[in-house]
Amino acid sequence: MIGVFDSGIGGLTVVRALMECLPGYDVLYFGDTARTPYGSKSPSTVIRYAIENTEFLLSEGAQAVVLACNTASSVAPDLLRRRYDLPFFEVISPAAEMAVQSSRKGRIGIIGTRATVASGVYEALIQKLRPEYRVVASACPLLVPLVEEGWLKKPETAMIVKKYLRPLKANQIDTLILGCTHYPLVADLIQAKIGRRVRVIDSSTGVANSMKNAIEQDTDLQKRLKRNGRYRFFVSDTTPQFENIARSILKRPIRLETHAG
Amino acid sequence: MIGVFDSGIGGLTVVRALMECLPGYDVLYFGDTARTPYGSKSPSTVIRYAIENTEFLLSEGAQAVVLACNTASSVAPDLLRRRYDLPFFEVISPAAEMAVQSSRKGRIGIIGTRATVASGVYEALIQKLRPEYRVVASACPLLVPLVEEGWLKKPETAMIVKKYLRPLKANQIDTLILGCTHYPLVADLIQAKIGRRVRVIDSSTGVANSMKNAIEQDTDLQKRLKRNGRYRFFVSDTTPQFENIARSILKRPIRLETHAG
Repeated sequence: MIGVFDSGIGGLTVVRALMECLPGYDVLYFGDTARTPYGSKSPSTVIRYAIENTEFLLSEGAQAVVLACNTASSVAPDLLRRRYDLPFFEVISPAAEMAVQSSRKGRIGIIGTRATVASGVYEALIQKLRPEYRVVASACPLLVPLVEEGWLKKPETAMIVKKYLRPLKANQIDTLILGCTHYPLVADLIQAKIGRRVRVIDSSTGVANSMKNAIEQDTDLQKRLKRNGRYRFFVSDTTPQFENIARSILKRPIRLETHAG
Repeated sequence: MIGVFDSGIGGLTVVRALMECLPGYDVLYFGDTARTPYGSKSPSTVIRYAIENTEFLLSEGAQAVVLACNTASSVAPDLLRRRYDLPFFEVISPAAEMAVQSSRKGRIGIIGTRATVASGVYEALIQKLRPEYRVVASACPLLVPLVEEGWLKKPETAMIVKKYLRPLKANQIDTLILGCTHYPLVADLIQAKIGRRVRVIDSSTGVANSMKNAIEQDTDLQKRLKRNGRYRFFVSDTTPQFENIARSILKRPIRLETHAG
């Protein structure tokens, strides 16, 4: 089965993309809601959590692991790949590649958590692919709590998004990467504030496509991953709030099981 | 020494109150910044963290423990008192008593995290002291992230505070309890939005006074608590952001030591 972990509930946007892109593949999700959010925490703490989450997914039989969290993807993949002998997929490289392919003027903006932006990993990847491109990043630390509160349509959220996008707008970006799995839930608002001419890239769809390609090319992985259409969702803490967001992302009732993390 | 724990950095407002109220007493602080916030998590998870934090403070020699976190104070004290043979002080009862004494019309408002408000503990305490009083509570889940971002003076914060206070204003409260240790940092804004005639009660000062009274009456506790003016600050995760807030609360440079939690 495909193991997926995230700092909380936002990573379900990646599960939604996997359901569309790789229908029928068994998926085991773990959302670390007891320690959420990761985006304001230090790299060493996020790495420790990523290892613990991977251990849990392995113990439940995962044959491949998706880091459905930009913050974890920005600091943990290298270490996880050295430590465990199985394929890891992260959300950052596919989004960076999509952005590079889509950009016409070579001006790419990135929004993400404080930790993701501080890591500089999007900039590094884009500079490697296209050294001449200009990259501007803006940390949006309040966007996750706003989304988790369900304040998707409130004027305060619109004002805060506008403020966060100001430096990107001033730099006349033509492409914007949503570098956090929560942000697709306010994609319409972000598109409205950054302007119609800017192409908005959702990091959750890229990883599903890159995983599909990897599976097509790897017959061994194809065999190992079961396709019984089974989905299981674990969280380290349950509250009615988390359950509401989970349902609104997946647009179906789901049962959240608990693993203490 | 006096052990103090909080979900993060906000509990330093309690340390500030202890410094004023009980000068010279040794204090050991633990802020669980690696798992912050507690306010959106379930009671069972918060209780588990409260036990782990208490174990750490005991291992470092604490002779009394202050729960400098309204969320932990709303769900954990009874269990901690049964489990450990030492005095526990929490922030809720002193604030409820202050509010009851200060109220003239018997209409008390409470603002706090989602978990604190859901626990109903403030209402229960006030109803026990004054069954005829009317109590209205409003959960303000975005206030902690706004304070942690340092958005103390931004218009968005003012708009959000106004929105959260609306039901309390509609109920014509005469007294308002700040039921979260972060809120004193925006006390001026809250006072402005709720109106000058409403008395605002800070839960962090009440606990320091109630501890002072307890120490005066308990000669045994007096002897056990050392008074060398030593302060130590532990956190489970360090980031520049946390260090900035810590300094702005205590108004002095402090060294944050790490304990992995």
